[in-house]
Amino acid sequence: MLHKSLPSALLQEDANALAARLRRGELTSEKLTATTLAAIEDTNSTINAYTFVDVAGALAAARASDRRRREGRPLSKLDGLTIAVKDNIDVAAMPTSNGLGYHDDIPTPDADAPVVARLRSAGLVILGKLNMHEIALGATNDNPHWGRCENPLRVGYTPGGSSGGSAAAVAAGLCALALGTDTMGSVRIPASYCGVSGLKPGRNQVNAAGVTRLCRQLDTVGPLARSSRDLRDLWPMLRGNEVTETTEPLTECNMPAPSLASIRWGLIDRCDEVGADQEIAFFFRNFTESLPGAIKARRDFSIVDFSTVRRAGLLLCEAEANVTFVSELRAQPDLFSPELRRLLQWGAERTAPDLVRAMDIVEQAGSWLKLQLEDVDFLLTPTTLQTAFPFADKVPVNQANLTSCVNMAGLAAASIPLGVADDGLPFGLQIIARAGDEERLLSTCVALEEWIHSNVALVTV
Amino acid sequence: MLHKSLPSALLQEDANALAARLRRGELTSEKLTATTLAAIEDTNSTINAYTFVDVAGALAAARASDRRRREGRPLSKLDGLTIAVKDNIDVAAMPTSNGLGYHDDIPTPDADAPVVARLRSAGLVILGKLNMHEIALGATNDNPHWGRCENPLRVGYTPGGSSGGSAAAVAAGLCALALGTDTMGSVRIPASYCGVSGLKPGRNQVNAAGVTRLCRQLDTVGPLARSSRDLRDLWPMLRGNEVTETTEPLTECNMPAPSLASIRWGLIDRCDEVGADQEIAFFFRNFTESLPGAIKARRDFSIVDFSTVRRAGLLLCEAEANVTFVSELRAQPDLFSPELRRLLQWGAERTAPDLVRAMDIVEQAGSWLKLQLEDVDFLLTPTTLQTAFPFADKVPVNQANLTSCVNMAGLAAASIPLGVADDGLPFGLQIIARAGDEERLLSTCVALEEWIHSNVALVTV
Repeated sequence: MLHKSLPSALLQEDANALAARLRRGELTSEKLTATTLAAIEDTNSTINAYTFVDVAGALAAARASDRRRREGRPLSKLDGLTIAVKDNIDVAAMPTSNGLGYHDDIPTPDADAPVVARLRSAGLVILGKLNMHEIALGATNDNPHWGRCENPLRVGYTPGGSSGGSAAAVAAGLCALALGTDTMGSVRIPASYCGVSGLKPGRNQVNAAGVTRLCRQLDTVGPLARSSRDLRDLWPMLRGNEVTETTEPLTECNMPAPSLASIRWGLIDRCDEVGADQEIAFFFRNFTESLPGAIKARRDFSIVDFSTVRRAGLLLCEAEANVTFVSELRAQPDLFSPELRRLLQWGAERTAPDLVRAMDIVEQAGSWLKLQLEDVDFLLTPTTLQTAFPFADKVPVNQANLTSCVNMAGLAAASIPLGVADDGLPFGLQIIARAGDEERLLSTCVALEEWIHSNVALVTV
Repeated sequence: MLHKSLPSALLQEDANALAARLRRGELTSEKLTATTLAAIEDTNSTINAYTFVDVAGALAAARASDRRRREGRPLSKLDGLTIAVKDNIDVAAMPTSNGLGYHDDIPTPDADAPVVARLRSAGLVILGKLNMHEIALGATNDNPHWGRCENPLRVGYTPGGSSGGSAAAVAAGLCALALGTDTMGSVRIPASYCGVSGLKPGRNQVNAAGVTRLCRQLDTVGPLARSSRDLRDLWPMLRGNEVTETTEPLTECNMPAPSLASIRWGLIDRCDEVGADQEIAFFFRNFTESLPGAIKARRDFSIVDFSTVRRAGLLLCEAEANVTFVSELRAQPDLFSPELRRLLQWGAERTAPDLVRAMDIVEQAGSWLKLQLEDVDFLLTPTTLQTAFPFADKVPVNQANLTSCVNMAGLAAASIPLGVADDGLPFGLQIIARAGDEERLLSTCVALEEWIHSNVALVTV
């Protein structure tokens, strides 16, 4: 399926490995980019991860990167690597569809979102835009306008969402890195279902200008990659002060991977009681029992009324989307699927006090989760309560139960691959940290990933 | 009008002067408290600042303070001084009316709000509860249930609001210190109209548990006093982390008053153009021209659509009050004046997207004000655009124009007396600072107050 001129295994290497090949001169950015573009062309009709590909722009950027490297002045460690961007984040001269049903008139911004501009200034090659759940409000990526994005691990199964295209493209080797957005779990859920790694940064840690909002309070921009070390190295290029729009210098993260034995873990207790598949719950329990750590404090999540919290979070999104898309809803209602129009109409008909009550519930859920972090360094949970499911199945309502409270609390969280269920599909480990603690979080993910690789036999059931 | 056994001038001394008398043994807390209680009894029928006075409790607390002092173990610099509390803040065993029309069934909490508990643990003598604008939604303190609180400087005139009782009691010497709350300007407006000093702390700098909310995002608890040095010394007893509810140690503020010449000021430009009385605008301009400073950067406030911002802020309050008072509105609607019921009904009938739009406007106004603080230490504006007005007059709609954006930005601001208009009534100077910078703000207010006292002849027009 993949391009013949290079082994497809190359496209499955993580960004660090590809960057090392570029540094050693075994590979050029142009060759990597051309190979990736060919793989996209070969596979996109199946996987449908991309909504737009900028072949000429990507090749020109790759050649410019190769020139810089020849001249000994790469812009960053990741200069020349490929990245693709979820279609609710502005990239100059590329359409921003937000997963809506545009025909030929997709709004096309003149300028990059600041977070994209930073990646460009680090020399990353932007391949194009990625499929997503319609306006990012949902977690299957069963997009009625752009088509389903398929899970590259099993066609016919959801990649998760709303950043389904981002996770699918990374998992399929159709980019080295990707950007997604995460409002209730939209980076972490597809990372879990597709077997890749994703980061939801803490509130106000990444500039969200140029990103179509779903819910201002909960939205975050986050990266997806094939390894934790890739996320760790990409993070300094993403973070930036939202308020003043000052950019941080592109310093690399030099924090050494911590000793896991020194870490105080908070662990979700009895995750089957909050709806995890038996297999995931059992695996998670065995994993946390063998994991080294200074403290392992069990946390009871069963006291949370996840159904009420979910409805409250959704109302924030549904009410706000009526404002964000007010002119589109009025002038071009058929951009929206009938199902989405019904959701938004429901939000439009709630009262202002209804929204206040929902915000109160969101605030309480967030405060509760922040309290769970007291006296520990990180909280560990499964990312999702199940593995990817067939598009034909009923959508589980609890997909975001373990992820959405993190957005409500404004905390940071990563998802890294934890295990593989009997159905052969992966599931993720969610590591929750304080906002602003992303660097330590990602360094810890590197150590966790190594530990999981070395010890998976110990924890497999 | 005041009690005969001590000169009324004593009750007009600031808390620092009274504390010095206690330390030197010239005065006991019991005598100060008894004298103040007598003055309250003598004057409250006129000024109507108190809704509840705890004579026995205050005298017992004063005697306990005197014992501690005799035994050489006062709890703080302010041990034995009197304080009174706005009637939307819980004090154990005192009614909390929120300015509503209760008869004999006023809710009476068992426990102090944490901020009150801290004051009690610093040895302050709590005299009682203070009149306020009905549910704190308004700035005249023309309370239909408890009666108007009068401006002690001129009966028949508003003291401002919503913390009108707090400012009036401090101005009339009916307590050494007072607590108020400030959602759009409710500490600073009455401070300006009554010629006293008040602080609105930055967002999340004071624990708001046990305080009836009006608008969670904008509410702050703030002190009023007869001098800036009193605010400075009270501040360490008020601040506390809202989220974790940890209490900071009661360390005194030892920050020396800064040199005004070293400060970078941002100054509102042409405040007559945003509606200030000519006299206030002229005085403010002369004041800022003679004030020492390292930088004086003019800021244009005329670009703000204050009418839209005001309506947006009010909608947040009106929608949220429907949730806060849901059971009272349902079970006892006559607790609320017909005018307030109309306001709240209006809020109840707005849609969730209406509220999102209002929150967007509030966010934008706050972001704009934060930008005005860039590259300067403090912003200076008049606190109010006019002096106190007769209750009989139409209420100016612009009372909170210069104060409410501070709440929207989450910043801190103090109001200190700046001048006296031809009508003989005072007006305040608002000093806006970053959240968390309250200590430096109040030290600067001490220096500003001294400079204004010494140089008032220079700036009087």
